[in-house]
Amino acid sequence: MQTIDLNCDMGEAFGNYPMPNDETLMDYITSANIACGYHAGDPEVMQRTVSMAIKKGVAIGAHPGLPDLQGFGRREMKITANEAYQFTLYQIGALYGFVKAAGGKLHHVKAHGALYNMAAKDVALARAIVQAVHDFDPTLILYGLAGSEMIKAAQKSGLTSASEVFADRTYQDDGSLTPRSQSNALITNEQDSVKQVLIMVKEQKVVSANNKTIALKADTLCLHGDGAHAVDFAKLINQKLKQEGIILKAPASA
Amino acid sequence: MQTIDLNCDMGEAFGNYPMPNDETLMDYITSANIACGYHAGDPEVMQRTVSMAIKKGVAIGAHPGLPDLQGFGRREMKITANEAYQFTLYQIGALYGFVKAAGGKLHHVKAHGALYNMAAKDVALARAIVQAVHDFDPTLILYGLAGSEMIKAAQKSGLTSASEVFADRTYQDDGSLTPRSQSNALITNEQDSVKQVLIMVKEQKVVSANNKTIALKADTLCLHGDGAHAVDFAKLINQKLKQEGIILKAPASA
Amino acid sequence: MQTIDLNCDMGEAFGNYPMPNDETLMDYITSANIACGYHAGDPEVMQRTVSMAIKKGVAIGAHPGLPDLQGFGRREMKITANEAYQFTLYQIGALYGFVKAAGGKLHHVKAHGALYNMAAKDVALARAIVQAVHDFDPTLILYGLAGSEMIKAAQKSGLTSASEVFADRTYQDDGSLTPRSQSNALITNEQDSVKQVLIMVKEQKVVSANNKTIALKADTLCLHGDGAHAVDFAKLINQKLKQEGIILKAPASA
Amino acid sequence: MQTIDLNCDMGEAFGNYPMPNDETLMDYITSANIACGYHAGDPEVMQRTVSMAIKKGVAIGAHPGLPDLQGFGRREMKITANEAYQFTLYQIGALYGFVKAAGGKLHHVKAHGALYNMAAKDVALARAIVQAVHDFDPTLILYGLAGSEMIKAAQKSGLTSASEVFADRTYQDDGSLTPRSQSNALITNEQDSVKQVLIMVKEQKVVSANNKTIALKADTLCLHGDGAHAVDFAKLINQKLKQEGIILKAPASA
Repeated sequence: MQTIDLNCDMGEAFGNYPMPNDETLMDYITSANIACGYHAGDPEVMQRTVSMAIKKGVAIGAHPGLPDLQGFGRREMKITANEAYQFTLYQIGALYGFVKAAGGKLHHVKAHGALYNMAAKDVALARAIVQAVHDFDPTLILYGLAGSEMIKAAQKSGLTSASEVFADRTYQDDGSLTPRSQSNALITNEQDSVKQVLIMVKEQKVVSANNKTIALKADTLCLHGDGAHAVDFAKLINQKLKQEGIILKAPASA
Repeated sequence: MQTIDLNCDMGEAFGNYPMPNDETLMDYITSANIACGYHAGDPEVMQRTVSMAIKKGVAIGAHPGLPDLQGFGRREMKITANEAYQFTLYQIGALYGFVKAAGGKLHHVKAHGALYNMAAKDVALARAIVQAVHDFDPTLILYGLAGSEMIKAAQKSGLTSASEVFADRTYQDDGSLTPRSQSNALITNEQDSVKQVLIMVKEQKVVSANNKTIALKADTLCLHGDGAHAVDFAKLINQKLKQEGIILKAPASA
Repeated sequence: MQTIDLNCDMGEAFGNYPMPNDETLMDYITSANIACGYHAGDPEVMQRTVSMAIKKGVAIGAHPGLPDLQGFGRREMKITANEAYQFTLYQIGALYGFVKAAGGKLHHVKAHGALYNMAAKDVALARAIVQAVHDFDPTLILYGLAGSEMIKAAQKSGLTSASEVFADRTYQDDGSLTPRSQSNALITNEQDSVKQVLIMVKEQKVVSANNKTIALKADTLCLHGDGAHAVDFAKLINQKLKQEGIILKAPASA
Repeated sequence: MQTIDLNCDMGEAFGNYPMPNDETLMDYITSANIACGYHAGDPEVMQRTVSMAIKKGVAIGAHPGLPDLQGFGRREMKITANEAYQFTLYQIGALYGFVKAAGGKLHHVKAHGALYNMAAKDVALARAIVQAVHDFDPTLILYGLAGSEMIKAAQKSGLTSASEVFADRTYQDDGSLTPRSQSNALITNEQDSVKQVLIMVKEQKVVSANNKTIALKADTLCLHGDGAHAVDFAKLINQKLKQEGIILKAPASA
């Protein structure tokens, strides 16, 4: 039986600024990466989002980012491995507070934005983040880019990992994402996205931008939470996967 | 056998700004209230301070404050009870991250500055903070001003509380602190401070500013961490109490 | 010839969080109060908003708030008069940077949210804010609640002031706003709002909640920038006022 | 007549965290780079520091940094040229508020920490910062690392620049600073520092780490403000330079 997890960044509202899709999206996803107040989110948003996830039976993950609210955690910062460890631990703990108080369970951790991207390539950052997750709770699952240093670091540490794939990004022959600086980085056609997802999930393969079929581990699919079509696409991919007999569920700790 | 806890606010450094007394003070106190990044402290400071406390066998408490780094959490903010609950939970969780990862144990929670003072008088805020502590872990101990709404809220909720007294503040006939706006609010003579502490600890009484002897519950004594004489006074009071045969130790959960 | 200024809070986006009505609203208002990064706004938003205002010929004001992004500057903070002075000066200067660089002119200052409300009643805060405006540039115009301490402080200091009135708030017999805690605080019917505005502008009077006609100085009308109907109402009131032969323009310095 | 400017970063206190040397240092320097609230400093500190500088006749500069208080502006952030422009303009304006209100004059701008270092090498960032300074006031003087892209960008834009040199850093044969990662990056002996400064100021030359005498423009010497010996060294170098008949004064706009 084939399974896939549908994850989405949630709780990225802040103060007076809403993220209106969150509640609806909860109906179509199986795991939520909840912002922890560094790149987005605040205690009120975190409490509300944790509560929604519990109510909808969506697996809860901490979504730690760089301390850069104005940049939404998308600007690289030259931080040390120790800082990556400390930032991650702080944010996991902060989210855990709300999860614990609400009687829920913390399920996974996925780094956000620039932290996710930097740690995908930088062994020291990857290990520091993995160490923070492991030191907090070794039964947590680490979500990371398929084939990245994050996944390798998790495996090395004994942490269960979930390899993340993207519906709307093209892949290079080596399994990496086509950089956004290239014109063919994004898949803009919905049908092409769906097609890529089905191949990834059913065959653990992807057709590269270069038209080569390559192996790609696909444990969890990243859905976008903002933008006009986010809800529509989440609904569509949820239906298509179910129609193909694929079980949608969050990964389990090994 | 008489016992008293000596608590001190710790980890109130931030980034490039040190709090140089912290390490030395750890030798004279029995519980540390560690800042959680809202009014002071940052992930690096939190990790380092938690590690020092564990090494020195000092009981670790979360010290949540208002989100006001520039004001050091000392400016009152009109927050709702929900916000007090959320701010407290966020900060307890964040500190817990470091305590858990370091193999330590979170022992208590003490609100900081304006949050401490507002909640001492405001039932709704007191209950919200107590609820957050209780929802996170009902075995945590709440430190609060002796006789305050915080202590009452803790008792009501079933949370163990520790009544806090001050060495350098004078008391009113009703057991409240003399407001700082009054000229006799502070005890500036060290010997007078020591004397007041000994009476408070040994007799659970205090002589008010009005020269009346009143009952006062004294479970934990607040020592100041900053200022030139902080270390000297901590050392002095630690010795005086021991000389009197008083056991210095952190309170235990009921 | 009767004139009125239509002012609106602008530039209250932040980082990744948009305020989508701003550009459209610029077509219907005569002065913009631009957030300065404390309660909302950031350097990118400020630059963009200043540029829009210049292009549309809208008078530019600084809109200083309390340093509380999560609370959108709406939570009261117990700040000293010195802090009010410093916060105001910092934010006026920051906005002035963008105005100067873009070749524009800073026209007025209007405090935001809790700072506006606190200073409407608190003489010391009102004088501190007025002093900051005056010390920066005595030709700036201070916008404040009609009849408030802010207007009195401006008059006392020699600063030109503009008395602000509201379309959707009811008034008490003494000219103050009906507190939001009362059920009749808001005018929810658009036609009633328009009617109130016309009386205020044409007769410098208002019919109180208590049905008494009282004098009320109306130099500038506050329009809301967020919410679904903000643009529609701005358009409507702009048209109605013009139809009545009233000149819409920003006040001039005395 | 030979002249040199002695500049020092000032106003890097924040909230409850002091920078105790500032007042004393003002007696030995000729220009102060005052933090603007991004990497350090707050409105109270800015007002106080501007006031001290005016009183002591020290030239006032804005010292914009990256928005990273915890990292003290020392962590590189991948910002765009637009962001560099906006951050610089915001901070110049904010400081200008206090300078204007106090009746002083803004004299120069010096970028801080990682922003200084990044812009020394990155043409786009250098031009953006210079453009912000120029757009605010083309008579301001830009302080930048001697030989850096900042100095080149200032020259290109018509802005007067001051080439900055260091007493305690060694130089490479190409005039660049020896990277801190190398063991010989710092001059730890005070007499060697004094000697290097005298050669730099009197001969506009420096002896490189490689023992080669090279040309180096020296308009302003950077003195450190923190650390135990900061005041002593400032006093010493001030005296030594005066003994050599060198005039200590801030540079003038061309």
